[in-house]
Amino acid sequence: MTYQAGRHFLQVPGPSNIPDRILRAIAQPVLDHRGPAWAKLQAEIFERIRPVFKTRQPVMIFPASGTGGWESALVNTLSPGDQVLTFDTGQFAVLWGNMAHKLGLDVQMLATDWRRAPSPEAVEAVLTADKAHKIKAILLVHNETSNGVMSRVAEIRKAIDRASHPALLMLDTISSLGSADMRMDEWGVDVVVGGSQKGLMLPTGLAFVAASEKARAASKTATLPRAFWDWEPMLAAAEGKGNLPYTPACNLFFGLQEALDMIDEEGLENIFARHTRLAEATRRAVRAWGLDTVCAEPSEYSQSVTAVFVPEGCSADGLRKAILERFNMSLGAGLGKLADKVFRIGHLGDFNDLMLAGTLSGVEMGLALAKLPHRTGGVLAALSYLSGVEERRAAA
Amino acid sequence: MTYQAGRHFLQVPGPSNIPDRILRAIAQPVLDHRGPAWAKLQAEIFERIRPVFKTRQPVMIFPASGTGGWESALVNTLSPGDQVLTFDTGQFAVLWGNMAHKLGLDVQMLATDWRRAPSPEAVEAVLTADKAHKIKAILLVHNETSNGVMSRVAEIRKAIDRASHPALLMLDTISSLGSADMRMDEWGVDVVVGGSQKGLMLPTGLAFVAASEKARAASKTATLPRAFWDWEPMLAAAEGKGNLPYTPACNLFFGLQEALDMIDEEGLENIFARHTRLAEATRRAVRAWGLDTVCAEPSEYSQSVTAVFVPEGCSADGLRKAILERFNMSLGAGLGKLADKVFRIGHLGDFNDLMLAGTLSGVEMGLALAKLPHRTGGVLAALSYLSGVEERRAAA
Amino acid sequence: MTYQAGRHFLQVPGPSNIPDRILRAIAQPVLDHRGPAWAKLQAEIFERIRPVFKTRQPVMIFPASGTGGWESALVNTLSPGDQVLTFDTGQFAVLWGNMAHKLGLDVQMLATDWRRAPSPEAVEAVLTADKAHKIKAILLVHNETSNGVMSRVAEIRKAIDRASHPALLMLDTISSLGSADMRMDEWGVDVVVGGSQKGLMLPTGLAFVAASEKARAASKTATLPRAFWDWEPMLAAAEGKGNLPYTPACNLFFGLQEALDMIDEEGLENIFARHTRLAEATRRAVRAWGLDTVCAEPSEYSQSVTAVFVPEGCSADGLRKAILERFNMSLGAGLGKLADKVFRIGHLGDFNDLMLAGTLSGVEMGLALAKLPHRTGGVLAALSYLSGVEERRAAA
Amino acid sequence: MTYQAGRHFLQVPGPSNIPDRILRAIAQPVLDHRGPAWAKLQAEIFERIRPVFKTRQPVMIFPASGTGGWESALVNTLSPGDQVLTFDTGQFAVLWGNMAHKLGLDVQMLATDWRRAPSPEAVEAVLTADKAHKIKAILLVHNETSNGVMSRVAEIRKAIDRASHPALLMLDTISSLGSADMRMDEWGVDVVVGGSQKGLMLPTGLAFVAASEKARAASKTATLPRAFWDWEPMLAAAEGKGNLPYTPACNLFFGLQEALDMIDEEGLENIFARHTRLAEATRRAVRAWGLDTVCAEPSEYSQSVTAVFVPEGCSADGLRKAILERFNMSLGAGLGKLADKVFRIGHLGDFNDLMLAGTLSGVEMGLALAKLPHRTGGVLAALSYLSGVEERRAAA
Repeated sequence: MTYQAGRHFLQVPGPSNIPDRILRAIAQPVLDHRGPAWAKLQAEIFERIRPVFKTRQPVMIFPASGTGGWESALVNTLSPGDQVLTFDTGQFAVLWGNMAHKLGLDVQMLATDWRRAPSPEAVEAVLTADKAHKIKAILLVHNETSNGVMSRVAEIRKAIDRASHPALLMLDTISSLGSADMRMDEWGVDVVVGGSQKGLMLPTGLAFVAASEKARAASKTATLPRAFWDWEPMLAAAEGKGNLPYTPACNLFFGLQEALDMIDEEGLENIFARHTRLAEATRRAVRAWGLDTVCAEPSEYSQSVTAVFVPEGCSADGLRKAILERFNMSLGAGLGKLADKVFRIGHLGDFNDLMLAGTLSGVEMGLALAKLPHRTGGVLAALSYLSGVEERRAAA
Repeated sequence: MTYQAGRHFLQVPGPSNIPDRILRAIAQPVLDHRGPAWAKLQAEIFERIRPVFKTRQPVMIFPASGTGGWESALVNTLSPGDQVLTFDTGQFAVLWGNMAHKLGLDVQMLATDWRRAPSPEAVEAVLTADKAHKIKAILLVHNETSNGVMSRVAEIRKAIDRASHPALLMLDTISSLGSADMRMDEWGVDVVVGGSQKGLMLPTGLAFVAASEKARAASKTATLPRAFWDWEPMLAAAEGKGNLPYTPACNLFFGLQEALDMIDEEGLENIFARHTRLAEATRRAVRAWGLDTVCAEPSEYSQSVTAVFVPEGCSADGLRKAILERFNMSLGAGLGKLADKVFRIGHLGDFNDLMLAGTLSGVEMGLALAKLPHRTGGVLAALSYLSGVEERRAAA
Repeated sequence: MTYQAGRHFLQVPGPSNIPDRILRAIAQPVLDHRGPAWAKLQAEIFERIRPVFKTRQPVMIFPASGTGGWESALVNTLSPGDQVLTFDTGQFAVLWGNMAHKLGLDVQMLATDWRRAPSPEAVEAVLTADKAHKIKAILLVHNETSNGVMSRVAEIRKAIDRASHPALLMLDTISSLGSADMRMDEWGVDVVVGGSQKGLMLPTGLAFVAASEKARAASKTATLPRAFWDWEPMLAAAEGKGNLPYTPACNLFFGLQEALDMIDEEGLENIFARHTRLAEATRRAVRAWGLDTVCAEPSEYSQSVTAVFVPEGCSADGLRKAILERFNMSLGAGLGKLADKVFRIGHLGDFNDLMLAGTLSGVEMGLALAKLPHRTGGVLAALSYLSGVEERRAAA
Repeated sequence: MTYQAGRHFLQVPGPSNIPDRILRAIAQPVLDHRGPAWAKLQAEIFERIRPVFKTRQPVMIFPASGTGGWESALVNTLSPGDQVLTFDTGQFAVLWGNMAHKLGLDVQMLATDWRRAPSPEAVEAVLTADKAHKIKAILLVHNETSNGVMSRVAEIRKAIDRASHPALLMLDTISSLGSADMRMDEWGVDVVVGGSQKGLMLPTGLAFVAASEKARAASKTATLPRAFWDWEPMLAAAEGKGNLPYTPACNLFFGLQEALDMIDEEGLENIFARHTRLAEATRRAVRAWGLDTVCAEPSEYSQSVTAVFVPEGCSADGLRKAILERFNMSLGAGLGKLADKVFRIGHLGDFNDLMLAGTLSGVEMGLALAKLPHRTGGVLAALSYLSGVEERRAAA
């Protein structure tokens, strides 16, 4: 591969493009993680991260990737052999379930066709049938990165309540945190797991875990062994009652401080609205090309990623390769059973209209280049939506 | 103005987007500009910069903006009252002439309608008429940044030769160097002036001056006062025969080293071909919108900037403002007599297809937003060209 | 605290000063961790990291802090209730033992006075007494960061061999890796755990784990639950046989690539010699001040950190605070039972003679400022050693 | 030369060590220098730079090195053949005089032995003798970088006033600005010239020029040709009445903004006091070594640089080379007639006690290494002063 001029378009659904402000922030010299300057920074971060989770609870920050957050959620609240309800709705939901199995939990899996999220009705049915309350936790993925399907968390919560079931509701927000609305306290989520490299615009390396009072109570009696992932010292640090139990990822804290500044400058709700708008423009392009999104439920469209089926018999990976080599853009691959059938467009993080226009242009040119059956006009449809021409017509 | 998410599209015709590789390079700690590490770097730079000018002459590097290069060209070769031939063909050509006037030279100006470069025929006529050889220098702009018109330098050279006129041919390549082919030695250019902030992808702060043997001979007898801009010590340094006369812009040298690496990786001719291709795509978009480029001569289209007329009675500056505020993109303004009638799209430096697609999308959406009479389809025309669909059709 | 001019002297024993080359490297834009550019980088890193461990085994790299490496070592090789031999020889040795206890292992602890490492004789005695081979692993810290004591690993290995005991020898090299010689294969170490933020000059965020054939065999039957820390997929990736199981810490990989370049440029053995020399200079200063190092065994002096007792009745933390506020230097605190009795000078990573001179000057001035009983002359003793004056005298 | 670990000690008297905060600031993406964000930044900079000059006048900022500021001062206020009073008191004073000569001015030079600044008495005598007021300007260097001698500007001003002479007082503050007090308005300085790469902690590339009402009036009638260096458009821009006449050095403006933040955080007077203190510590070390500073007048000691004579018959350049190769530190060379007789220690910019301790340690070890006759104890003398032990004794 020869040198490719210009900026690479990193349009995988995370890691997202890291803004240069944040790259410069993480390039600050490290400081003494036991000194007063660090203590001040740490306190600031723990205070300012809570609103992003819409919670009054402390948010723990582990120096690890988001997958570690999954493990922390499980080992702190559950005991060997406990039953957990998981979902076969996409690659990452399945991987979380697999992890639970490896850790010695009894995994019950509810499946969909990978084109929709778990239905509240199905969840309610399972829980209602579990008279003995053997299910101790429900492992829900908020935004399934592999297919662009978002769970209706508030409705799932209501389903659990209707079943009067005491299971903990655990939520993976790795690819939605900072991109889509997530109301931990209002929705009654017991454990929220997040990562740094998507909506928070940082490199990989921070796992966030927030726990409700109920989850914290469960951690008192849970017996799965735990040390690195133990909540107790992390909660103490997050609440300003103690040092972090081991060396923190200082440079990512610098970056997180900058990310929180950027979030404050734009406003969290404005950020969500921007993601909603860019996601809608993307889907309009997809439809104009005559292609299908994997997500089949309009109420479950993802705000951060759109997975797209290539026409039957075509190779999504061939398309992605052509686009990478010719147009210097990375798209996400289909994972698991969607391999080679799907490409994924990430439209999350520090992203705007013209970056999306460039992205969709790369896809449209790639479709032509790779000679995949499609209609032109996807970019035009997106631009028309983004410039508001269509809206104004509708209003006329 | 509220915070604008995502990457700013800096599509003025320079300073061009500085690649992050170069930004990191200029952020290296400064070093002793009289020590051995610097001596090594300086020698490397002076060696590697020559091929960019396609010359065997040393290239001087002043710690100043490109405008200083204009002054250096004049004060080293001319004496008070000397006649110079300049051109009223665009804002920067006029400014260079004005500078000559301020420095005490006798300025003769040849005009066009600002939609084309000086014609070789007109130059030949003027020189032929100058029997007494009072004209000592011709101040030609290679790429006129204000209107996107490129001079046919090789043809101008031939016109001078046909007139058997001894005037020095001076060439401003500030917005073409590193973006369009420029063959100093082959074309018989006597003084080439360049800057760092366009095709070389650096911040403003380096002025390049290369002089032919003939120009260097002229500098022996020229009497305009000079000190900072004096060629003598700079030539000695460029030829490895002495120290630089004053502190160099070390951090920009770091950046220049990185820029030369990038140029080597892509290949200078590949870079020119890329600029040609992106410029053609831009013009196809302009035509599809039903708008006119300022440049009226196809043989003089600029490879680095396209200036576009807005429809009669419309405000180009209003359009630019709307695009900046809504789409986070900066376009160049019309200058001098083109003010508010023209907007300029820079497509130079470290730039690629998808960045151009985003740029043209911003213009197309801006035209709609600002309700300027136009046709949609510009982006589509550009994409069609860039993806080669059209070519393949033609071949069929 | 008002603004403090100039460069902060970060002389804690890690995180060490991150060289600006590495800070710039980690500030590179992230790339697609499933694309070809990443695959190339990953393969390069896995190849080049092995020599730093002096092993032919693959070195696993987890996106986590070094503490996680401890956990990975344990959960992959041991089963609930297994006995492990740990050491009460310093704060970090104790913490690793505590972790083993939390994970459900049966911890046997051998103590010293925290001024020396475990003696090979004591280890041999314990192992010889363990006729039933109940002890499955020995958790040894190579360089105890809390007191500046280095274990004699090769001798411990021989002691184990003399006892013909099959226990796995696990070695924490977090604060020695890249600073002191460590020969995994030659010394017969079964599991080596390292971190990024000390001798490797990176931010916190990478945990390294290398395992011998014997340890890998043990992992086939070990039953402690594991998922995030599981060796199997990590080994596959390290051996080029599969993708990493979850998103890697890309930006730290960029930094590691730069760190490996720097290590190659200086040479690993040269780096060790430099650390040895700077450590000796530090101890000469300590002796000249009339103070004692915590480490009481000359054969166990640390190359990366020197812990120093303040005079009886004085406050080490008061001294550190005075030095931080007046001289903008951070020193390490005494930990655990050494709290307030000891300060620690880190002299590891990208460090040189003049940085050490500044560091020791800060300590010497701090001792004066805080009115601690001491003799001046420490800096002079160090300079005398570093400039080789003393050596030349000895040679005369 | 093999790789040298650790931070380079750049102790030449400028460019000074650029703080990493500023390096990150200049690494920000460039922006449209004709757009609203730039306009805001430019206005802020022009407002905040004035207090550094202690003037109510606008401060012009040219995209060039400080030497260009010299030229700008001359060509805007003087006419061909005008007489100027210059000083043969050090290398840079001589160079400024040489420049005046090259530009066609009539240079009268007053000499010292290069160990002291021009005496007010001598200046008064020359001016009193100039009954015809042929001298139009006095070119004074505030801090002579080549020998570490500072002029007593306020006293020179009084001498001029006593002579009732109308000549313009021009002051080169290149190596004092931001390091030593300079009160343009109070001292009646007519033209102040400064640069970016010393006390302002930036890379080379900005020349500052401030002009009094009297100097601005002189510029109306001065006839030396000028274009790039012309004050008129620069003053308009500095006063918010117009655009900059050509592309500014945007990235250095980003750095200057950060530098002004740092200056505000520490406080300008605190910065001067810090420089005074570090300079005194340096001289104490020099005396303890038994060496002489070049500056022979205690009232003229420089706050930013100390030039030191090596013993008769020794090579200062050999010493500097040994120190560079062994201790990774750059010192300034003797210039002009001081070549090889003198080394210079820069102690300016973002600099603190421990950096100075490292610096002096490097010199002391270098003296030993190069076997130059000297006494040890210089570092100790400096530390003793810096830690205030001596003061406390004096107070007792």
